[in-house]
Amino acid sequence: MVNLAPGKDAAPWRQELYRIIFEADTRAGKWFDVALIVSIVLSVIVVMLDSSHDFRREYGRVLYVLEWFFTILFSVEYVARILCVGSRLRYMVSFFGIVDLLAVLPTYVSLLIPGSQYLMVIRILRVLRIFRVLSLATYMAEARYLVQALKASRRRIVVFLFTVMTAVVILGSLMYLIEGRSGGFDSIPHSIYWAIVTLTTVGYGDISPQTGLGRVLAATVMILGYSMIVVPTGIVSVELSRADRASADKVSCHECGRGGHDRDAEHCKYCGGRLNRSG
Amino acid sequence: MVNLAPGKDAAPWRQELYRIIFEADTRAGKWFDVALIVSIVLSVIVVMLDSSHDFRREYGRVLYVLEWFFTILFSVEYVARILCVGSRLRYMVSFFGIVDLLAVLPTYVSLLIPGSQYLMVIRILRVLRIFRVLSLATYMAEARYLVQALKASRRRIVVFLFTVMTAVVILGSLMYLIEGRSGGFDSIPHSIYWAIVTLTTVGYGDISPQTGLGRVLAATVMILGYSMIVVPTGIVSVELSRADRASADKVSCHECGRGGHDRDAEHCKYCGGRLNRSG
Amino acid sequence: MVNLAPGKDAAPWRQELYRIIFEADTRAGKWFDVALIVSIVLSVIVVMLDSSHDFRREYGRVLYVLEWFFTILFSVEYVARILCVGSRLRYMVSFFGIVDLLAVLPTYVSLLIPGSQYLMVIRILRVLRIFRVLSLATYMAEARYLVQALKASRRRIVVFLFTVMTAVVILGSLMYLIEGRSGGFDSIPHSIYWAIVTLTTVGYGDISPQTGLGRVLAATVMILGYSMIVVPTGIVSVELSRADRASADKVSCHECGRGGHDRDAEHCKYCGGRLNRSG
Amino acid sequence: MVNLAPGKDAAPWRQELYRIIFEADTRAGKWFDVALIVSIVLSVIVVMLDSSHDFRREYGRVLYVLEWFFTILFSVEYVARILCVGSRLRYMVSFFGIVDLLAVLPTYVSLLIPGSQYLMVIRILRVLRIFRVLSLATYMAEARYLVQALKASRRRIVVFLFTVMTAVVILGSLMYLIEGRSGGFDSIPHSIYWAIVTLTTVGYGDISPQTGLGRVLAATVMILGYSMIVVPTGIVSVELSRADRASADKVSCHECGRGGHDRDAEHCKYCGGRLNRSG
Repeated sequence: MVNLAPGKDAAPWRQELYRIIFEADTRAGKWFDVALIVSIVLSVIVVMLDSSHDFRREYGRVLYVLEWFFTILFSVEYVARILCVGSRLRYMVSFFGIVDLLAVLPTYVSLLIPGSQYLMVIRILRVLRIFRVLSLATYMAEARYLVQALKASRRRIVVFLFTVMTAVVILGSLMYLIEGRSGGFDSIPHSIYWAIVTLTTVGYGDISPQTGLGRVLAATVMILGYSMIVVPTGIVSVELSRADRASADKVSCHECGRGGHDRDAEHCKYCGGRLNRSG
Repeated sequence: MVNLAPGKDAAPWRQELYRIIFEADTRAGKWFDVALIVSIVLSVIVVMLDSSHDFRREYGRVLYVLEWFFTILFSVEYVARILCVGSRLRYMVSFFGIVDLLAVLPTYVSLLIPGSQYLMVIRILRVLRIFRVLSLATYMAEARYLVQALKASRRRIVVFLFTVMTAVVILGSLMYLIEGRSGGFDSIPHSIYWAIVTLTTVGYGDISPQTGLGRVLAATVMILGYSMIVVPTGIVSVELSRADRASADKVSCHECGRGGHDRDAEHCKYCGGRLNRSG
Repeated sequence: MVNLAPGKDAAPWRQELYRIIFEADTRAGKWFDVALIVSIVLSVIVVMLDSSHDFRREYGRVLYVLEWFFTILFSVEYVARILCVGSRLRYMVSFFGIVDLLAVLPTYVSLLIPGSQYLMVIRILRVLRIFRVLSLATYMAEARYLVQALKASRRRIVVFLFTVMTAVVILGSLMYLIEGRSGGFDSIPHSIYWAIVTLTTVGYGDISPQTGLGRVLAATVMILGYSMIVVPTGIVSVELSRADRASADKVSCHECGRGGHDRDAEHCKYCGGRLNRSG
Repeated sequence: MVNLAPGKDAAPWRQELYRIIFEADTRAGKWFDVALIVSIVLSVIVVMLDSSHDFRREYGRVLYVLEWFFTILFSVEYVARILCVGSRLRYMVSFFGIVDLLAVLPTYVSLLIPGSQYLMVIRILRVLRIFRVLSLATYMAEARYLVQALKASRRRIVVFLFTVMTAVVILGSLMYLIEGRSGGFDSIPHSIYWAIVTLTTVGYGDISPQTGLGRVLAATVMILGYSMIVVPTGIVSVELSRADRASADKVSCHECGRGGHDRDAEHCKYCGGRLNRSG
């Protein structure tokens, strides 16, 4: 996370505002965060209800007022955030800076383009701030741990997804040739869609093969999909297990200061210095 | 598990009753448990048959009598349990105490609110007592082992589920905007339901995208769901594997002090010294 | 596998027949096995074709003759097996002895009870004999390895399946109460069937919730099912990984003769004797 | 990968052409690969659009011209590849040699057999060349790593698939006997198809059991399928984890001779001696 705190020489009200809005270690800051999350959830519920035809007909006016109420509230909050941060630009291009802007824009845009107000559900991303109210550190550590394991296995996942994509294009096209228009396989893209539905074991059943040969191919795709899932599972398991071992052993070398040593290591694997262990 | 045994100074009939009802190490206690489990299963079958329209029309009277028979039987048992336990309150607020009460309440309530008798299926939870008849200790150890691994990874699972929820809200809303009412995506909550159906690879097929763009998004959701499952799998695998190693790590050699011995080891694998085990 | 070889004092033709039928290390024995497997596959195909209405109408007579041809062939083979084995009873109650009998019985029974001939597909189990033609030892070792890992985790799997069953009964009944007859949830057993279809992520879509509350419950079941699969996965992974480590190290102690030592063990974990390693 | 480079005494234009077409380490070679991949993707999109009835009616002529344009382009490229390689035969029977030929053949064949042009989607396999443009070595190492783990567990996977196949034949036939023609289970092969759809948790729902007994069997198949997936998952996890350890095991200390060092280790973790690495 980028450090957005205002400098020590900034006006006291900016420092105070920053502490309330961006941090959660004071009483006011915690209350602000709780109120914010409740508002976000309520505003998302309003958007959801508004999308329902029945609700809209009956409570359309109330929902409209509420939508604008939350939008103005979040707009004020966005301006307050910009006012108190140390570096305005850095905040505006950060992940949460962009989400905060996207959370209010759709309502204004909906004045020009009706329907776009539903994009406001992107507000839900702001709820991720909840991890700050909960004990931030531990949850963030867990999240980082997951992201790290996924990152470490990203090349294998790319190879895997690429193979899946190629398989799906070829299997879908084969199915198009076998079943053709009569079985509901109108075009190759549609057949590829079917192949994805089948390979991932989702199986809507809106299109399904009608001929014997088609069913043999479909069965092949299913068994392939059923077995293939094991590959990424294995990959991530191995990475998580490695990340786990790495983080389990916090001992770092007194000479070169680097960590990540195995449990049974007696010497630093980087500089060869002897490791002192307490446990 | 809480200890509910009556004190040593309690009336002998209470101690005797306690031994029969709550324990399974005497002959009478074992027979009681077997009879209880058979009754529970039979009574649940009665509730199930009663819910079937055809059965009810034909055997309604018999089922009604059986329902009351089992209810009174379990009521008597509940009273007996209360009479013999050491601390009544502790039993009544324990997991099985609550389940035992919920197992009889619905029939009485159904006199006031028809239909509520189907809640009696909660009786099925009482069948979990079966683990006491089987060799309790080993099964309980395994269950504890699983629960412990799940507990150890609960934070990661929370982060994971939170991410899934956020993804599902955003993907569902996007789908609502793309497909709209015509494709069966009536409202945002309904579209979120569709996103869950798809992401978890259940795929009922009651709603499925009809437009090209909708299908591209659906395919993305499917592949996401197909790949995402690997994350919790990895997490729990790692935790189970650690719990497994930990239970092997508890014994360490008294001579060289090193651990990591197998469950069946009798000598230290490093220095050959004898291992002392308590369990 | 039970040893069925006839004694050394048995008639030479019995010993010869046994070597051909039961073993695969002579030229004749290998050819016999290959011919047998081809016959089994062909006979199963005949049964399958016979079950198809269109095929039956056209080729009914041919299929009928072929069915009897294979049945008589396998009957002769069954008698030959009985004649040459050392202990007839032991063969007849062994897994393959029962399968061999079940492979011919249905055709005879079908003279009395029409339709029962389809039970002949049980013949397909005889194809498992193919592992003898392939290099038996390696495949059997792999199969044993899998079975062993499953056996080692059977208690955890029982606990897991029991939990799933209980969850499915309660969730299915809740759904029956929420959706009722109008949504297609006719009875509690039917709703439990729905809960299994959903929890296992199969999702036929023949019954699916129609009300808002029903969908919320369904979504919960889906996410539960999607997450729960990780538990048995973790269990079996851990067991396989342990079985793997155990079998990877074939070093056994020279003093007490027991194996299963870790890779880094220097002393026998059973008797403390020093291990000699060549590798 | 086979080495196809022309000898040192080959004509300079052949060596130059080879470097451009087959390698990606010169500027021209890189541009050639990028242009090639763009052409492949575009040509596959043309084939896909051509398969859509609506598109074809409107833009049929344009698509026809584009198809021939790409076919001639790839034909020229194929001839160029043949001209510059060292050993023509070795290229023509290599994986990419065959794919390159199959990528152009269908268009020519479609002059004789209409409809066969859709086979051109096999061109998509040529896109796998993209890994050369990306940093080839790392991706290839990852792919090799996956393939190696799959190969190492191929026997277990054969045993597993064989068991699945046998189970599916028997369960499908049982279902045919239970449900029969009325439930949509027309024939045994069709019922086996249903069993595969259910066991792999795809669940189209085009055929689903209607009787109570049928549903009990279906529920069994589902729970079996839901649980069985853990077996290959465990297998591949173990193999990947072993491959991972093995790739770390290759370096051992020259002083104390012990291995098992991490990829990033520079000193022996046991004695502190410096590790020599070649790679």
